[in-house]
Formats: sequence, structure tokens, C-alpha cells
Amino acid sequence: MQQLRDQLARITDLNHAAAILEWDQETYMPEGGAASRARQVATLRTMAHELLTSDLTAGALDAARPETDVDQDLIRIARRDLEKATRVPSTLINAISEAQGHAKGAWQKARATNTFSVFMPHLERIVDLSLEHAEALGYDDEPYDALLDIHEPDMKTSDVVATFAALKDVLVPLVRDLTKSAASTRKTGPDNVVHGHFPHDEQWDFGLRVARDFGYDLTRGRQDHSAHPFSTTFSIDDVRITTRIDESFFNPGFFGTLHEAGHAMYEQGIDPALERTPLADGTSLGIHESQSRMWENQIGRSLPFWEHYMPSAREAFPGALADVSAEMMFRAVNRVEPSLIRVEADEVTYNLHIMLRFELERAMLAGEAAIGDLPAAWNDRMEAWLGIRPTNDADGVLQDIHWSLGALGYFPTYALGNLISAQLFEAMHRDIPDMDTHIRAGEFAPILAWLRRNVHVWGRRRSATDILKATCGTGLDAAPWIRYVKAKYTPYTIG
Amino acid sequence: MQQLRDQLARITDLNHAAAILEWDQETYMPEGGAASRARQVATLRTMAHELLTSDLTAGALDAARPETDVDQDLIRIARRDLEKATRVPSTLINAISEAQGHAKGAWQKARATNTFSVFMPHLERIVDLSLEHAEALGYDDEPYDALLDIHEPDMKTSDVVATFAALKDVLVPLVRDLTKSAASTRKTGPDNVVHGHFPHDEQWDFGLRVARDFGYDLTRGRQDHSAHPFSTTFSIDDVRITTRIDESFFNPGFFGTLHEAGHAMYEQGIDPALERTPLADGTSLGIHESQSRMWENQIGRSLPFWEHYMPSAREAFPGALADVSAEMMFRAVNRVEPSLIRVEADEVTYNLHIMLRFELERAMLAGEAAIGDLPAAWNDRMEAWLGIRPTNDADGVLQDIHWSLGALGYFPTYALGNLISAQLFEAMHRDIPDMDTHIRAGEFAPILAWLRRNVHVWGRRRSATDILKATCGTGLDAAPWIRYVKAKYTPYTIG
Repeated sequence: MQQLRDQLARITDLNHAAAILEWDQETYMPEGGAASRARQVATLRTMAHELLTSDLTAGALDAARPETDVDQDLIRIARRDLEKATRVPSTLINAISEAQGHAKGAWQKARATNTFSVFMPHLERIVDLSLEHAEALGYDDEPYDALLDIHEPDMKTSDVVATFAALKDVLVPLVRDLTKSAASTRKTGPDNVVHGHFPHDEQWDFGLRVARDFGYDLTRGRQDHSAHPFSTTFSIDDVRITTRIDESFFNPGFFGTLHEAGHAMYEQGIDPALERTPLADGTSLGIHESQSRMWENQIGRSLPFWEHYMPSAREAFPGALADVSAEMMFRAVNRVEPSLIRVEADEVTYNLHIMLRFELERAMLAGEAAIGDLPAAWNDRMEAWLGIRPTNDADGVLQDIHWSLGALGYFPTYALGNLISAQLFEAMHRDIPDMDTHIRAGEFAPILAWLRRNVHVWGRRRSATDILKATCGTGLDAAPWIRYVKAKYTPYTIG
Repeated sequence: MQQLRDQLARITDLNHAAAILEWDQETYMPEGGAASRARQVATLRTMAHELLTSDLTAGALDAARPETDVDQDLIRIARRDLEKATRVPSTLINAISEAQGHAKGAWQKARATNTFSVFMPHLERIVDLSLEHAEALGYDDEPYDALLDIHEPDMKTSDVVATFAALKDVLVPLVRDLTKSAASTRKTGPDNVVHGHFPHDEQWDFGLRVARDFGYDLTRGRQDHSAHPFSTTFSIDDVRITTRIDESFFNPGFFGTLHEAGHAMYEQGIDPALERTPLADGTSLGIHESQSRMWENQIGRSLPFWEHYMPSAREAFPGALADVSAEMMFRAVNRVEPSLIRVEADEVTYNLHIMLRFELERAMLAGEAAIGDLPAAWNDRMEAWLGIRPTNDADGVLQDIHWSLGALGYFPTYALGNLISAQLFEAMHRDIPDMDTHIRAGEFAPILAWLRRNVHVWGRRRSATDILKATCGTGLDAAPWIRYVKAKYTPYTIG
């Protein structure tokens, strides 16, 4: 076991070192450092991959004699990582990496010039390579399974299809109800409340104060600026977040901080005994996103939350929020309005943006959609589901970077995160009956303790499905999120 | 050659990654990250060492067929690094590392409680291991040669002894002349000018502005805060500095920035063709220190410099410097006064602090000084050379961290840097006769170009001695520094 642990510790150290280099790249690195930094990160990642797929690791795995439950889980997960890593030939890895390099530039150009045809051949290449990738990894039912499994282990495409179908049946009419007239749109939230002047330092301090109240430990984390907010882990005791502040709009900075702090608290809560092993990581992107979304939406966009924080918010932003009540703020941060851009979408319409991408990805991989027809297919769905149609591809099929990075099978995990957060939140409500009272009092310790115990502490020892079954008694299920959204938004559709 | 280059590139990437982790540790890392970070850095350094001493590197070195002068230099330096790395058995490396771990804590405790006996047994162990280290590395004349060679390749202890002897003969009487009476002490500079209120942001901006004027390229570098200022290199295009600002004292922040920028400009000026090879580094600590000291002292503490910058300085610090002339500032930043602490010493007395440490290190290694007699030996020299005697060991033999880190043979490079900076500056004066005019006009490009051409661009291709011979026609020589100091300070001793 010790030989295996030493080998895995070294691999973990290399990957964490790469993460530190990437964090610096997004936060502090001078522009001149870009080329060298790309090579340095590649060296660390390549060496980690070589170590993982080396005879030494395979030998240590075969020779390891587990003595504890953790040992057993470690061997199981390490073997899984090793198999995944060895199944993909290095020629394919290099081909994918090269195609990404070209595709990213082409995508940027296509988006800037609003010309899908510039990106099209690259997307075709990415789809072909993704199919090869899926074949190399192996799958039961369809190639999409293999790609989804990279990000959401043990989840089946068929599960996602069924869950999303149930969701769509409810969501499309709900969005229509919530937004069918100008009057009802206004009713879902007075938008001007969160637009105004929110000074940088006050936003920074207020967001971090709430994150700290939630339980984000700043002796084992910190916040910096970056163009695109993210959270990143260097060890269980060093989990950082970044944010971007817009002084004219309250939401991106504040909810971005809560969102990233949700991710970070997950990784800070992993059992310290798992440090320097592959078990010390989020178990799936869906579970990870459930943590960020719960703190951001179920808690941070709740009425009890604003009943607690509105006095401090008024004090921090006397110019913009002097006359704003908790109820007004609650409505403002929950405004529902169909929009073209996923990253700006509200909580209700967001999942439809994801479902659209999921359908198109599956169709591309199945060869059911010609890449050239993609822009129209995109726009048709936007119109059918959200009632709005992009007038150009930059606001449509070209808006996201993911496909240019070769990340097919990634998008669903955003929606899974939303659904799982509601499943967990419902289960938590059963265990903590007076939860609203706690939130109204700014007491988040019981919530964090529940998440620690049921989700965080396990790292990758329990899969997403294991966690859901242990806490909710079921696997993935859209019903709790539908109940949550209906309960939250029903008042707005009445009268 | 390509196989060798690939292998060396990987080693360089690992070492630069470790440097990034160490930089983060000193600047931004939350306190909780310390334990993991130490392990991560150790993993990267160990892997770099393993790669360097692997059969793959040795084989690539033997098989490499050089086609260019750079190839030849690369093989020579890589072979030298490999030999040094393989000569020291890993058992000794581990023993040194373990002894350092214990010694550092003991030194901190000894210094805090002013009790040399707490540190003594650890220093004895460090000396024993340093002797073993020297034996493993090999030397011609005395063990000190081997330790000096780690930091100052190709320099002999006997050269240092002879140079320091010449220096001491001049310096001890000069210091006495400059400081023999309260009147003459005051004459060397009105100290109160640089003590006052110098606001943080104005210090930061003013220092960086001058560093930029010197030629420190901030698109390939940046400045951050740290407790102990340093410069560090992640690639030729990413060389960073740190500083520490004291709002009540102008000198540490300002001259610290110039000093670190001097180090950084050296590494920014290395030939880009040497990137990702062991040639892309400073050739010795003495040459490195010569670059920092030249910008800090020969230029930053010159009268023409202050004739140029005094108007901006008055504008930046209207409270403290409103009535201060260039001449007054020049005198204030060149104040000479014997003091107990090396890092606070002025330009003239500084070298005596170093020579004291050098003599004691040599005596310890030669077994000529019992470790228990060290405090008295230290204090006796302080009194004889500087006319002041420490009243406790925290202000004497316990003041520096270096010995606790096992770094015997390091101290002389500080003084070598001072001497070399004067040698180079004199040679530069011959090539740029109107240098004072340039400095008075804030034109530093000719100076930087000279340093680039004669020092920076070579990286490790030329040794310190090679550089000195090519520019000055001699090896190490104390005479230029003595001339420089006498010329600068003679006015103060007259009348």
C-alpha cells in the first residue's frame, strides 16, 4: 500500500502544481509569460500522465494489500483512472490536443466575425475525434456515454435523456407563464434594483463576508480577480476562488463569489486523510455544481437570506440599496427573463440552455445532424423553448468556448448540478426542519455540517449516485428541482 | 542534441514550476497551505534531481553531437551540473535536509531567546555535514573551495582571501575616518531626510517607475509584496520581484525595488535562444549581486540620479521631501554609520560584515575555531573593525538565517557582488564616457545595453571570471570598488 500511496502522492503533487501554475496564469502572470507557461503546464501534466500509466503504478496497484475501507476505495479509483488513461492512445491524445489548438483560434475568429463557417470544419474534426475518443474509452449504449462518463462517472446518457424530458415538459410552459407579458416579467423582479453603482471594494468585502459566514475558510483559501471566475484546489488546505466585479451590476460579482465559494467549501471539506490521493477531489462535476448552485441559488437567492443580509447590504451600498427591502431584493435577484446567452441566464431558464446543447451534441455524435445545419437547429430550439431567436451566431451557436476545447459531454453537468442541488436541499430540509429560521438568523453551520457529512467528506469514495441514494433514497431525479422552482415562482404567476 | 535538449527542458520546467510554487508561498498562499506546499515543492525538486541524474540524461549527454557554440556550452554546463549532482550521495542530501529542518527551528528559538547554546549543537552538525559535502564534491586546496564553488563557480577561496585582505587594509581606516566623530557622522548624510511619512502607494509607484525607467520590462515581470524581498525567474519572459514597504523609512522599499529589479533585468536579458536550458540562469551569485548592487548603489545612490529624480520625488512625497535638494537626498541615502546588523548596513561598512562571516566560516571548517567560541570571535571582530560591540547574540552571531539553512560559502558572494559591480562600472565608464550626463537625463538605455551585451545575454555560457576578463581585462579585483568608495566619500572627510 505504501508504495502505491507514494506513487499516487507524486502524481497528485504534479497535478496540483499544474493547477497552481494555471491559477497564476489567470490571476497575476504578466502577458509575456504565456508561451513558457503553456509549456510548463504541459510538462507537469504529461509527467503526471506518464507516472499514472507507468509500470510502476500498475505494479504497485497489483501488489497493494488493502487494510482499510479507504485503501479499498483508493485501489478502486486509482485502477479506474489508470484504465481510463491507458485506453486512450497517445497518438489520439496528441491529435485531440492539436485539433483543440486550431479550433480555439478558429472559434474566437468565427465569434468575432460572426461567421460559423470559419469554425465549422474544426467542429467537424472535434466531433470525429470525440467519437474516436469514445470508442477508445468504451461504452455500453452510445458514444455519448463515454464522454459523459469523463465528467460524470457512472451516469448514463439514457438517465440524462429521461430526466431532461421530464424537466422540459414542465419548464417550457413555466417559462411561458412567467414571462408571457411585460407585466408578469416585471412582476418576477424589479431589475433596476441590482443595476446601479456598486463600488468595487464594497462588493469584494460584502461577497467575501457572506462566503466566510457560509463557512469558506480563508485561512485555507483566498479570493483573487480573474477574467473568468473559477475555483481551484492546491490541497485540502489551500482551495482558492476568483471573481470578477462589475461596478454597475450587483449580481455577477456577488453571486459569482457565493458560487465559487460553494465549489471551494466542497473541496475544503474532504476528509484530510485522503490528502495526496486521487480520492481527494470532487466525485463528479454534477455534484460539484450542486454545491455551488445550492449556496448561490437555494440559499443566496432565498427570501430568508435577504431578510438576514439586507441591513448589511444597505449599509455596504447606501447609494444603490438605501430604499430596498428584503422582499424587493429577493425579487430582483430572481428575475426571470428569456435571454440568448447561457452565462447570463436566470435560474429558471438556465436548464433549457443546457438541454438544447445536450440534444445538439448527441445529434452531432450520432451523425443525425449535419454540422452545417447546427446554427438553424440551435435557433429553432431557442424559439420553440424560450420564445426568442438569435439574430446572429455569436449570440447563438458560437457563444460558448466548450466545443472548441473538445469538451463534448460537459454541458449536461451544469443542469445535473441544478437538479442535484434541489435533491440534496430537500433531503437536508427533512433533517433540518427549521432551516429557514437558521438562514434568517445567518446560521449556516448546520447546513455546512450536513453537506460535510453527506457529501464533502467522502471525496471520490462515493459516486454521485451513491451520494444521492444515501441521502435521498433515489438516483438522479428532476422532481425536487421542479417542486423548488414552482414553489419559488408560483407567487409571481398568480394574479 | 534534440534528445538532450528535451530532457533538459523538462528538468528546467520542473525547477521553474517549483519556483512558481515558492513565489506563491511568499506572496499569496493562505497560511493553511504551508504543509502541502512544502511537500509539493519537494516533489518537484526531487523529480528534477532524479531526471538530471538519470541514465537518460547521462546517455543523452554522451550521444549528443554539438553543432553550434551554444550546443558546446550546453553540454559543458549540463555535464558539470550532472557531475555535481551525482557526486553527493542521496543519504548525505537527506541528512543535510534533515539537519536544516532542525537547525532552522533551533536558530529561531535561539535568536528569540538570545541563547546561542540552543543553536550551537545544530551549527556543529551543519559544519560536520558541510565538510562531508565538500569532500563529496571535491576540492583542490581546502574544503571551503567546494562550498564556495556551489554559489560562485570557478572562484577559489585563495582569491577571496587575497581580495578581502586588500579590501580590509583600506576599509577599516576609511570607516574610522568617516565616523570618528559625531560631527563627521552627521556630515555623511542628514538621516532625518529619509525618515518621515512615505505613503505606501506612492512608494510603490515611485519605485516601480524608476525600475521601469531602468529597463525592467513589466510585460515580462511584476512586483508583489513579501516579508523578505526577492527576485525569481519562471522563464526569460516572466521574471518577478517582491518588495516590502516601510511607510516611516524611504530606503528599504525604494532601494529594495531597485536592487531586485537589477537582479530581474539580468535574467530578462538572457539570450532567448537559451530558454528551457540550464544556460538560461545567472552565471554566479557574485555576478547576480553585481547587477542588483550596480542599479541600487552606483546608479541609484549617485548624485546625477537624484539630480534627475528629485523633482519627481518631491512631487510623490510632498510631506517628507518638499524642501529636500538633490544634494541633500544624495547625502541622506549615503549616510555611513557602523551598525550591528548586516542587512541594515550602509554601502561602505557592508563588506566588513561579510568579511567577518567569511573568516569565521573558514575557521569553523578548518577546525580552527570551536563553535562555542564563535560569539566572542564575532564580537571581537566587530569591535576591531567597526568600533562597536554587540551586547547580545541576537544582534551578533545569531542575526542571519544562512547557517541554519546549511548555506556556508554563500556570504562572500554578497561582497563579491559589490566588488564586481565596481569593476564592471569602471569598464562601462570607459565605453560610455558621458555616463553621468545620461544618468542626469534619466537615460539608462546605454547602460542596460552595455550590461545586456557584456553580461546578461550570456547566461551561464560565460563564468564570472570570463565576464570580468572580457570587460575589465582582469579577474576579481578590489581596486575599482576602493576607488569608487573613496571618490564618493572623500568629500565628506575633508574639512
